[in-house]
Amino acid sequence: MRKVAIIGIGQTSVSEHWEKSLRELAGDAIFAALNDAGVESIDSLFVGNMLSGSLNHQDNLGVYIADWVGLHHIEAVKIEAACGSGGAALRAGLIAVASGEIETAVVVGVEKMTDNKPSETTAALATAADADYEAIHGLSFMAINALVMQRYMFEYGWSHVDFAPFSIIAHANAVHNPYARLQFPVTDTEYRMSRMVADPINLLDASPIGDGAAAIVLVPADKIISSIPHPKITITGSASATDTLAVHDRHDPLWLIAAETSARKAYSQAGVAPADIDLFELHDAFSIMSALSLEACGFAERGQGPRLGLENEISIHGRIPIATRGGLKARGHPVGATGIYQVVEVVQQLRGEAGETQVEAARIGMTQNIGGSGSTVITHILQVT
Amino acid sequence: MRKVAIIGIGQTSVSEHWEKSLRELAGDAIFAALNDAGVESIDSLFVGNMLSGSLNHQDNLGVYIADWVGLHHIEAVKIEAACGSGGAALRAGLIAVASGEIETAVVVGVEKMTDNKPSETTAALATAADADYEAIHGLSFMAINALVMQRYMFEYGWSHVDFAPFSIIAHANAVHNPYARLQFPVTDTEYRMSRMVADPINLLDASPIGDGAAAIVLVPADKIISSIPHPKITITGSASATDTLAVHDRHDPLWLIAAETSARKAYSQAGVAPADIDLFELHDAFSIMSALSLEACGFAERGQGPRLGLENEISIHGRIPIATRGGLKARGHPVGATGIYQVVEVVQQLRGEAGETQVEAARIGMTQNIGGSGSTVITHILQVT
Repeated sequence: MRKVAIIGIGQTSVSEHWEKSLRELAGDAIFAALNDAGVESIDSLFVGNMLSGSLNHQDNLGVYIADWVGLHHIEAVKIEAACGSGGAALRAGLIAVASGEIETAVVVGVEKMTDNKPSETTAALATAADADYEAIHGLSFMAINALVMQRYMFEYGWSHVDFAPFSIIAHANAVHNPYARLQFPVTDTEYRMSRMVADPINLLDASPIGDGAAAIVLVPADKIISSIPHPKITITGSASATDTLAVHDRHDPLWLIAAETSARKAYSQAGVAPADIDLFELHDAFSIMSALSLEACGFAERGQGPRLGLENEISIHGRIPIATRGGLKARGHPVGATGIYQVVEVVQQLRGEAGETQVEAARIGMTQNIGGSGSTVITHILQVT
Repeated sequence: MRKVAIIGIGQTSVSEHWEKSLRELAGDAIFAALNDAGVESIDSLFVGNMLSGSLNHQDNLGVYIADWVGLHHIEAVKIEAACGSGGAALRAGLIAVASGEIETAVVVGVEKMTDNKPSETTAALATAADADYEAIHGLSFMAINALVMQRYMFEYGWSHVDFAPFSIIAHANAVHNPYARLQFPVTDTEYRMSRMVADPINLLDASPIGDGAAAIVLVPADKIISSIPHPKITITGSASATDTLAVHDRHDPLWLIAAETSARKAYSQAGVAPADIDLFELHDAFSIMSALSLEACGFAERGQGPRLGLENEISIHGRIPIATRGGLKARGHPVGATGIYQVVEVVQQLRGEAGETQVEAARIGMTQNIGGSGSTVITHILQVT
């Protein structure tokens, strides 16, 4: 297969976009990405989205968006993998271009979640869990993650406050990202005093939902024309893996085996090790997920994820910067769009366009997008080549 | 890219499976396909489904089904293109295997639609149309197709009864398909007397929904071991194209340009012409769609689709047999599963396993799966090689 490069990125802010429809959000991100790439003609569209059928009364999402942006008659399709839909859509588009079946692709992640009642949105999000064995018993994602975090604290001896750095660092970085939902810092005291949601998860352990769209343009790496003004960013690793859907079915509910599996495959493809990764946009939907992902991907020993935060290793100048533009926690988590926001943000870093939160000399970046409670995990590695 | 073969097929009956969950239906079809292929280990799962989020409270459908059937840790994802989801899932799996990224794939189409109130199901189906410009005005799929059929009859001078053969032939074939939803024949008189639904569409112009699942196993064609007892069926053409989402936006609402575009691409890839196709499993959700698809794919002149029925050219012994196992009209239309049922049925024909409805000396078969009112169209060509 041929190598594939990302030549354009675009995004809307993550916010409550009550004045914009789902297709307008997607269109804004796509037009920004096409403009960034300097191209007008595109062969195909891959859409990452989870909830449009239940929250926006709209399926057939590929053509819905292709038609809106004027990409007439092209191939267009939607990919769903719950909150991992964006990463899964990228992987589908990547394979199509890498195979030679398609020359150029736009991948857009889009979600519109704030027009509905919170109870509707919470119920819709619970469809990422097992409807028969989890959701029907009232196990929302908040509740599942609270149970996992309780067990993790018990098993490895951590206190709640040891997770504070995940939240504080994400917010500190989001201050400098104009597209972020929560562009304000939080302090250690604010974290301790934050309102409890589902013990031990408080409001500052949890990422906010939002409306938003992010898009990227994929082309064969050898077709890049020299006039493109950006460094050449190639996708060198891409892998997807699954675990049990229900957390209670796992031998060890504190180990993300799908995250480990997909990261290992991606490392192998890219010919790199965790030590080579300059920044890692991980799936910090809850602070416990940051710890578990860092461990599964080889950045921390088992049960030692919080140590990276306490030792300041995950900030912009640390060993493995995460949530460099705010992460799910503070940039916001428009679920089906998140995986593409992560990629857009890594491209910003690799281009040197991340401003105040630029990771110095970033050459290799990784994204990991998770659907459900670690049940579907998609990892990508991007490199300046 | 390497050639890809279908080495296993499986299906459940299309029915009201109130005793089976969505995953049980999918599992039954997958196990049947794996058994038919004589393989146990599979690398990936591609799911075609439209409505699980809104009707079954279940998203994250890739891992939901992979976990259930014991395909632990594999890559798994859902593809959505409304009623074209099955065909779109096949295309995604095909590209992944053809590219070499994946060695083996199961593609399953599954839909469970009869546990809900009819009003809920009708509203969910309307999400395949344009929510803002069609569905919100009460334009269900029935209504959209009725408007198109009215216009077609006016424009080309056909009477309603001229469409009778589409329904009669589909039912005649379904009598011999144990998996079909409506295993009974209908007569010309019954067609004329059938209850009106949306003028001119009566009950026998419309396909029934249902619960069902169908699955196929894909492998690289050069990896087929000689012990497999079936003729070697290779996918030689695969293409997807889109039109406007809303029918009123089309220059000519009586011409399926996406069907034409995807069929032309598939013909070109396979190196065949319409005259070479031995049977055609088309998307006969409504009888008007049969006429339009036959025209767009080059089997009839513009406006002359009904003539093929009246001249008995679409029956098993005609020039271009359609709906050979009952079609959407009588096998039934579990929307996201339909595209895979079509492929399973063409494989049955090419293997010579279609019994009473066997198309003699069938060597090349075509499927065309449509999402929305001709807005997303996926065409595949299968050949005995």
